[in-house]
Amino acid sequence: MVDVTDIEKAAERLSEISVRTPLLQNYELDQIAGGTVLIKPECLQLAGSFKIRGAYNRLSQLTSAQASNGVVAWSSGNHAQGVAAAGAMLGIRTTIVMPEDAPRAKLENTVRLGGEVVTYDRYTGDREVIARQIAADRDAKLVPSYDHEHIIAGQGTVGLELAEDSSSMGLPPDQVLIPCGGGGLSSGSALALKSRLPEVDVYAVEPADFDDTARSLLANERVRIDDTARSICDALQTPMPGELTFAINRRLLSGVLTVSDEEVRAAIRFAFRNLKLVVEPGGAVALAAVLSGKLDTKGLTTAIVLSGGNIDVDLFAEIQAEPK
Amino acid sequence: MVDVTDIEKAAERLSEISVRTPLLQNYELDQIAGGTVLIKPECLQLAGSFKIRGAYNRLSQLTSAQASNGVVAWSSGNHAQGVAAAGAMLGIRTTIVMPEDAPRAKLENTVRLGGEVVTYDRYTGDREVIARQIAADRDAKLVPSYDHEHIIAGQGTVGLELAEDSSSMGLPPDQVLIPCGGGGLSSGSALALKSRLPEVDVYAVEPADFDDTARSLLANERVRIDDTARSICDALQTPMPGELTFAINRRLLSGVLTVSDEEVRAAIRFAFRNLKLVVEPGGAVALAAVLSGKLDTKGLTTAIVLSGGNIDVDLFAEIQAEPK
Repeated sequence: MVDVTDIEKAAERLSEISVRTPLLQNYELDQIAGGTVLIKPECLQLAGSFKIRGAYNRLSQLTSAQASNGVVAWSSGNHAQGVAAAGAMLGIRTTIVMPEDAPRAKLENTVRLGGEVVTYDRYTGDREVIARQIAADRDAKLVPSYDHEHIIAGQGTVGLELAEDSSSMGLPPDQVLIPCGGGGLSSGSALALKSRLPEVDVYAVEPADFDDTARSLLANERVRIDDTARSICDALQTPMPGELTFAINRRLLSGVLTVSDEEVRAAIRFAFRNLKLVVEPGGAVALAAVLSGKLDTKGLTTAIVLSGGNIDVDLFAEIQAEPK
Repeated sequence: MVDVTDIEKAAERLSEISVRTPLLQNYELDQIAGGTVLIKPECLQLAGSFKIRGAYNRLSQLTSAQASNGVVAWSSGNHAQGVAAAGAMLGIRTTIVMPEDAPRAKLENTVRLGGEVVTYDRYTGDREVIARQIAADRDAKLVPSYDHEHIIAGQGTVGLELAEDSSSMGLPPDQVLIPCGGGGLSSGSALALKSRLPEVDVYAVEPADFDDTARSLLANERVRIDDTARSICDALQTPMPGELTFAINRRLLSGVLTVSDEEVRAAIRFAFRNLKLVVEPGGAVALAAVLSGKLDTKGLTTAIVLSGGNIDVDLFAEIQAEPK
């Protein structure tokens, strides 16, 4: 079972590659929220999302014998880039199974970072089966994208930094909103946050159609989304919570918020115009929740994680061209 | 004469409105530079550029009698927003003379922040004459955009923060590159930087056609650019250095670098794709200088200021759509 000491150890390992991101504030966002909003911009992270944290924490713990045949992962794009970047830094060969319709920027960056990319059809293929087959053929280690203790501990360093930096600013948050796909980031961060700030409310934020964690909490067991679900948030299209991540999230989350594609697009526009940050759809869900008033922020300190910024230029331009 | 104690006092005044921006690093930028690059992202600043610093430092020192008739400024856009924001925070009426072809976002934001905007033709009108006339009519105080001790001291807090934060990271820079229009940011920051880090080389960076500070240093007196000059950097189209700013810059700068419109566009693309930051043309000149190798960065620690992020969506989309 992952606990906060695993996250502290991960933070120590990650200090080798300086992944710490700042906490930002924005006057206009505070005005809209009627309170204080702390922004954790993981879009500014190495390889453009928080995923390097878990990937590096996993890869750096492999023995040289384990690493010698390389590693295999499956990912819609951000984990792919995180694994490729961690592999490049540690001298480990990486192979990543990615959907053929993943954002071009994510496919290209993964290759540029030295990853070998194998594509599949998101709606008919099973990326996990393909990845496991490649790993078996090569006797290579798998790097799951969320349901693994090392991954959860690595992503949890986002919550740890948030707790530490907000406290040293004298602004410990009342509530923290974290984008949620498979649940690695939200569960790891919830562990760290609740350990440092026991009174804090941690919310996961999901796309309206991919609300598997919300449904699973209601059902009190892991529920799978049907495969007609679609969302602009390519990074959060996970059909079911992880086993390990859900066990943590059911214990620690105060709730789950959901946002529509339109609310996400408005958040990406706000980030461009007001925050001057490039945020991808999946990275913008927590901001979307605040901007569209999904929870009370008046007089409170609310922290949001912007989990990634890897968006194709065409989609970005299309979203920006829409009326405000 | 402005000195570093004025900048320290400005920093104290500005601590009321939390203007401190972080220092960022980017793995890929370091790879390209062959050294360490520290990024001071003033695009993340309140109202989207460093200009709030000088404006607030000036406005907060007015007596209530002086402030009672409001203030008047002239600006291509960023100073306008800074003055309007500072006025809104301090309850002072603001009127700003802006070119009619200023970026729409800058015009709209100035109005949204509560500023009264008066437009003129950039190539035929004289904004200073218009502003002085309005100020005289109303018995209102002027807020010059660079050539004033309070403005220089306020903008100098960028250099002060840069010196402090880089030192506490154990990475005092060998050289610092600062965008230069009228010279308020570069002269104030140079004062702070040379006071804290006497060995540092400070460079101003100008658009190729608006190299008035470069020419003035060569001529050893202030030189005016002819009015056929054009540049994509709307924020840096100043025809001549300020009197006060030039007196400081001629003493403290190690040199001036210039960049072309094409190099600026490439830097804006790099900031979108790799840094995930929205940077306007004038804000991107120091990054452009590093990316296009205008000075040696190998094995050195180089700090760059991204001075603003207020760019219209159409221009931003057009630049992003260009081939890399």
